[in-house]
Amino acid sequence: MVIGLCREARRAGRELGLASTDAKNQALRRAAARLRERCPALLSANRRDVENGRAAGLSSALLDRLTLDEARVKAMATGLEQIAQLPDPVGETIAMWRRPNGLEIGQVRIPLGVVGVIYESRPNVTADAAGLCLKAGNAVVLKGGSEALASNQAIAEAIAVAVDEAGLPPAAVQLLPTSDRAAVQVLLRQDEYIDVIVPRGGPSLIRAITESSSIPVIQHYAGICHTYVDRHADLAMAERICLNAKVQRPGVCNAMETMLVHQAVAERFLPSVIARLRAAGVEIRGCERTRAIVPDVKPATEEDWRTEYLDLILSVKVVASMTDAVEFIGTYGTGHSDAIVTDHYDRARRFLRQVDSAAVYVNASTRFTDGYEFGFGAEVGISTNRLHARGPMGLRELTTYKYVIYGSGQVRE
Amino acid sequence: MVIGLCREARRAGRELGLASTDAKNQALRRAAARLRERCPALLSANRRDVENGRAAGLSSALLDRLTLDEARVKAMATGLEQIAQLPDPVGETIAMWRRPNGLEIGQVRIPLGVVGVIYESRPNVTADAAGLCLKAGNAVVLKGGSEALASNQAIAEAIAVAVDEAGLPPAAVQLLPTSDRAAVQVLLRQDEYIDVIVPRGGPSLIRAITESSSIPVIQHYAGICHTYVDRHADLAMAERICLNAKVQRPGVCNAMETMLVHQAVAERFLPSVIARLRAAGVEIRGCERTRAIVPDVKPATEEDWRTEYLDLILSVKVVASMTDAVEFIGTYGTGHSDAIVTDHYDRARRFLRQVDSAAVYVNASTRFTDGYEFGFGAEVGISTNRLHARGPMGLRELTTYKYVIYGSGQVRE
Repeated sequence: MVIGLCREARRAGRELGLASTDAKNQALRRAAARLRERCPALLSANRRDVENGRAAGLSSALLDRLTLDEARVKAMATGLEQIAQLPDPVGETIAMWRRPNGLEIGQVRIPLGVVGVIYESRPNVTADAAGLCLKAGNAVVLKGGSEALASNQAIAEAIAVAVDEAGLPPAAVQLLPTSDRAAVQVLLRQDEYIDVIVPRGGPSLIRAITESSSIPVIQHYAGICHTYVDRHADLAMAERICLNAKVQRPGVCNAMETMLVHQAVAERFLPSVIARLRAAGVEIRGCERTRAIVPDVKPATEEDWRTEYLDLILSVKVVASMTDAVEFIGTYGTGHSDAIVTDHYDRARRFLRQVDSAAVYVNASTRFTDGYEFGFGAEVGISTNRLHARGPMGLRELTTYKYVIYGSGQVRE
Repeated sequence: MVIGLCREARRAGRELGLASTDAKNQALRRAAARLRERCPALLSANRRDVENGRAAGLSSALLDRLTLDEARVKAMATGLEQIAQLPDPVGETIAMWRRPNGLEIGQVRIPLGVVGVIYESRPNVTADAAGLCLKAGNAVVLKGGSEALASNQAIAEAIAVAVDEAGLPPAAVQLLPTSDRAAVQVLLRQDEYIDVIVPRGGPSLIRAITESSSIPVIQHYAGICHTYVDRHADLAMAERICLNAKVQRPGVCNAMETMLVHQAVAERFLPSVIARLRAAGVEIRGCERTRAIVPDVKPATEEDWRTEYLDLILSVKVVASMTDAVEFIGTYGTGHSDAIVTDHYDRARRFLRQVDSAAVYVNASTRFTDGYEFGFGAEVGISTNRLHARGPMGLRELTTYKYVIYGSGQVRE
């Protein structure tokens, strides 16, 4: 069953890859209309999932993620309409050049083909992922959390109907209609039909998928993000940035987990910033030198430097130099997002060059690592891979390219 | 031992990633000089390999690939000097834009990190791969064919010494000093230290590596390349192109394996082109309709359409329409390089759009799919992957990117 579904997705992907922008946008707008129309049916499917989840003893946080209401359904529909408004990445000429022999070689963006998206409880991922894949000309095979199966089926079906109405192959949007784990294992071996797997979920989900997949996986692992407050920092700016990076939304991967402070400014900077962080509800865990300056700070352990809290907890370390800060980030960071606050021209440039993370900031909050904030319009996730896509993955990152070569009879000597 | 070596390569890669273009070019030029200087020692190491190979009963084709002479050593040295002359891809700003909030976001090219190259008998791959990786700022872990171990060690050592002389970490160029297969299995699990594996060799080598690797693999599988002669083709041009694509160098992946001919021109085109191909030593295997036109052609079987001959053999099929040709290429092609010969504007555009191969040609020989011919200056291979790199892989394809963000105190609302 899984194999047949993947084969159909491949066929649909071939057709969708050649579809016009207008047809794809029409499918997205019709899908948005369908979701609004079918809102009562979606909510009743969702209620079944929530009731089953409650009976199965899901935590209230999980139940909250699982639950749809009218506002959430509308937000999904609006999301699809926004994707319709984004420029179509397919067909873009990335570069074109002429060779001495007269051949003109163009590098042209095309869809990846078939994308497998494996995710956990939020049903809105069904609409987001389907919409982005559709716009980029890819068929998508979706596998959501088993606790959201009825909701996901209702959403995927509404979208597939809309795709059909727009004259495109409905098999381009498919959902594994099962909560069976064995089905995922089969899915992950369909390298003939699926080009890439995008897992959205915790590290253990991603690791398990990577281990068993014969299809390339675009991972988005943890973000242990650092802000380094340099000796030449504007300390008022540093305080605003650190506060924002920690407390504006602590549960996401681009939030700061560790603050590094140059020893020359630690005594001036730490008492005030820690007071403000604490006022915002943040628990501080510090190195020895931090604790010498602000005595009632809990000691940070080696474990703390390696932890993505995703919570109102911050580890703090005083460093002797920028070199030490860069090395610390290289050792404990996850290559996601790291920032320096400094007014020093050369140190800013060196930090940007030496820190090997997907996003490296000068004088800004790490919270900006995000498809919308980068101007991509939407994102499938934030890749911590080095290959293919790094950082926020928007529509372009769901494409590949081919070379088109215009000749006039050239042969090779 | 393998793990320690990979760990050292990671460390060296970090350092090399920040090296100046001048230092890298100096290392490449010194490496070229070293290879020339040490030519007698290289040749004597190579003689040992060749003698062992002969004793082990290697075929004469394999022995030929294995054998170095002064000219081949000089060609390796010249290759390294040519790489020194190519522009440095590292540090290139791919794009930069300003957001409404004043953040300036740049996408900057950086090295991949550590590249593992696994290859078969030709010792010159040692120099080529090391040179390309070095220029792109990557450390490289090389694993050559066991039959070339002494030659490869001599080459790799000469290069590592030159890297050291240029003030760069010699551990950036490492060769697995063993012909032990178990060592490769260990290598393929070092995802902590190696970022990508590039296998150069036959399909069975690539498949085996892909199966056991926990590191992403950039494959370059077979090229079953087609030339489609359209009903609107200039038949004299079509003949020149087909001849070149088949016979100019039949043993390579961008050579034509199957010729498709529109039925409307088959009777005019086939007798003459087949006569010329045969005069060049090509064996023809044709479909029924081909054999009805040129009676003494051998019948082509289903197996023929799926075979990369890499030899002076060509399969020929008469098709009823361009649509049939495109479908045939989609079914039997390997997504490498395919061409149309036509004078028809709209059919040219449709073929370019509908054929999903890494390189799609109008009115030119498929033999141009090559890093040098594309103007990349050199290549590591030709990728048949869809992710990360597709088609000829030059220096740019050995890099990734990061985002550098210039702020002035921006925080997220």
